[in-house]
Amino acid sequence: MPASMLLTNVRPAGGPTTTVLVRDGRIAVVGKGAKADSVDVVDAGGALMLPGLVEAHTHLDKTLYGMAWYRNEVGPRLIDKIDNERAMKKKLGIDPARQSARQVVLSVGHGTTHIRTHVDVDTEVGLAGIEGVMRTRERYRNIIDIEIVAFPQSGLLVRPGTVELMEEALKMGAEVVGGLDPSGIDRDPKGHLDAIFGLAERHGRPLDIHLHEAGELGAFAVELTIERTKVLGMQGRVTLSHAFCLGMPDPVAVGALIDGLAEAGIHVMTTGPASRPAPPVKRLVEAGITVCSGNDGIRDTWGPYGNGDMLERAMFVGLRNNLRRDDELELALDVCTHGGARVMALADYGLEPGCRADFVLVDAETVAEAVAGRPPRKLVVKNGRIVARDGRAIVEAP
Amino acid sequence: MPASMLLTNVRPAGGPTTTVLVRDGRIAVVGKGAKADSVDVVDAGGALMLPGLVEAHTHLDKTLYGMAWYRNEVGPRLIDKIDNERAMKKKLGIDPARQSARQVVLSVGHGTTHIRTHVDVDTEVGLAGIEGVMRTRERYRNIIDIEIVAFPQSGLLVRPGTVELMEEALKMGAEVVGGLDPSGIDRDPKGHLDAIFGLAERHGRPLDIHLHEAGELGAFAVELTIERTKVLGMQGRVTLSHAFCLGMPDPVAVGALIDGLAEAGIHVMTTGPASRPAPPVKRLVEAGITVCSGNDGIRDTWGPYGNGDMLERAMFVGLRNNLRRDDELELALDVCTHGGARVMALADYGLEPGCRADFVLVDAETVAEAVAGRPPRKLVVKNGRIVARDGRAIVEAP
Ligand SMILES: [Zn+2]
Ligand SMILES: [Zn+2]
Repeated sequence: MPASMLLTNVRPAGGPTTTVLVRDGRIAVVGKGAKADSVDVVDAGGALMLPGLVEAHTHLDKTLYGMAWYRNEVGPRLIDKIDNERAMKKKLGIDPARQSARQVVLSVGHGTTHIRTHVDVDTEVGLAGIEGVMRTRERYRNIIDIEIVAFPQSGLLVRPGTVELMEEALKMGAEVVGGLDPSGIDRDPKGHLDAIFGLAERHGRPLDIHLHEAGELGAFAVELTIERTKVLGMQGRVTLSHAFCLGMPDPVAVGALIDGLAEAGIHVMTTGPASRPAPPVKRLVEAGITVCSGNDGIRDTWGPYGNGDMLERAMFVGLRNNLRRDDELELALDVCTHGGARVMALADYGLEPGCRADFVLVDAETVAEAVAGRPPRKLVVKNGRIVARDGRAIVEAP
Repeated sequence: MPASMLLTNVRPAGGPTTTVLVRDGRIAVVGKGAKADSVDVVDAGGALMLPGLVEAHTHLDKTLYGMAWYRNEVGPRLIDKIDNERAMKKKLGIDPARQSARQVVLSVGHGTTHIRTHVDVDTEVGLAGIEGVMRTRERYRNIIDIEIVAFPQSGLLVRPGTVELMEEALKMGAEVVGGLDPSGIDRDPKGHLDAIFGLAERHGRPLDIHLHEAGELGAFAVELTIERTKVLGMQGRVTLSHAFCLGMPDPVAVGALIDGLAEAGIHVMTTGPASRPAPPVKRLVEAGITVCSGNDGIRDTWGPYGNGDMLERAMFVGLRNNLRRDDELELALDVCTHGGARVMALADYGLEPGCRADFVLVDAETVAEAVAGRPPRKLVVKNGRIVARDGRAIVEAP
């Protein structure tokens, strides 16, 4: 399959209709000069062209997508869900390789070209999740890029042996060090953050920390994270995922946190959660903070929602942040494209000449319509090759 | 087209596979005894059967659905949106008959069998909205039931002549008296509520009040509404739409309001709004309050979101209220079916023998899967007749 094509009748980012030449997996020419010398011509029919969608936070290893419906009767506490999940992994036979493959194929159909996935590392599953997702990454490496976060879902210090497993995961091929609720789960914010920053420093890796802790407790963890990021010179390499505390009501306290995050170059990931306090996306972006988004867990033992669609996620970000104007919906999409690309430090991402040819075509008049309406993806191109048509990936899931 | 059929291989409300006989527009037999004597046989292929979805709050007269994309650049205040909308109605030529027809056809495709729509009545458009929606109601009366609320969108007392227009609308065919933010818009909570309760009393009609006022201001309006409902004996005939104040943080204050609403038999409509405080659906239902839902405005000058899908709305209600367990998602669906039916006082609604044959088939294993996954509606039946297949109504929109 050639990695070159001439796209005609296409509207990059909703601009005027033009022609785009893709050559050897990259966008070569946009507009004048884009000619079809010995490449296939694809008529986009006036479709909107968006950069490949970036799923910057999910859990590929433990979706139940494609399995029999899981009847959720789990208790209300966080620890209920964590304990239930560990038990269900065995009981239901949640195979990380098979399940991650299923979610990847679903995501490709929705136009996702890059995924950052947190993968459980604990003293029960060990590195089986990492191994499984690495098999999936290898299997689909021509149609999607996957970055792996070693994620201590069941706690780090409370489960001796987990730090060593994390270390092993990084050697095996996980790129990013994960963390989780330093007070809520490990009951030791200093100890937890010292441990994960230590791992990141020793291995020269970025960090991505799940922080569900709300209000003042979460704010304290944010402060500790800012301090360590600056001391270790890790500006631009640390992400706080969820960061519900940034949605607390006190505008002065939130303002101080935002200033600190901006100064330390810490990124924020938000799903636009409807039932939790949430980081105010517009304020963060205005302060210069890079904001990305993700679907988080899709149809898993934690909850039944999610379909892997990052355009739908952009809508959720818009709904949660009361974004209504067209320029605001463009911001919501930016979070789900360029924001994620910056967090993952993707090289040559975008729709300009020289960028990797990773893009999505949708039938929509404007970017805002694409976000609000979430039309099926007409065509998805990765590295210059067609990987999905009409909402379906060209490969099958196991 | 006959209003009778034998449905085989169908699972009412996700229960065991059975057979359902529809005769003369009603569900005649479920299970044993359902035989095909001279009726068409429809094999549901194991699909889930849900009662017809109830859109209990929308604005048919002013959707922009099907028109060119409206670039939203509106200011942030409520009054900006109200004023902008009145201006755009003229400028864009938002024809109430045509636009309501478009939304109705969309909704039928998604399995909605009943709609309560608020329709603007003001001193500029007069009764044109009511007339237009009444034409649509007549045009599609065989495929959907529509109930009309005369809605003073631009204020009641601040625009002299509006009360008289409301009166006229009720005589023409609107069934329900509407109201709107008695303090926020009319600046006179006593005056506004006395006026709309007066209209309701004189004409013997139910009331449905848009109440966006949050916190203590909204709570005050709720109190005034409870008082009037009890004095006038209107228990079971008053609905508060949105009621954001029920989402305020003070649990004692909210508890008192909930007790008062339950005692006065006042219903609550919530869209499950992600960016506003919202009524806690489970607590309301546990207190015995009927809760319904709706998509509110779909793709209009207020905002770009919405597609008319009440299964998607059930998901939004679930997401906003952090509903994750299967029994909780069943509650979210109940709000979008039986809850709306009770608010609209629909006779013979449901899946039992004797009920009107208004139902939806979807390919899903469980009710929870239907809510979380929102599969396309396989078949929609209204009064025993097929009105939509595979997500599309059998009639065309203008
Ligand atoms: Zn997560
Ligand atoms: Zn409304």
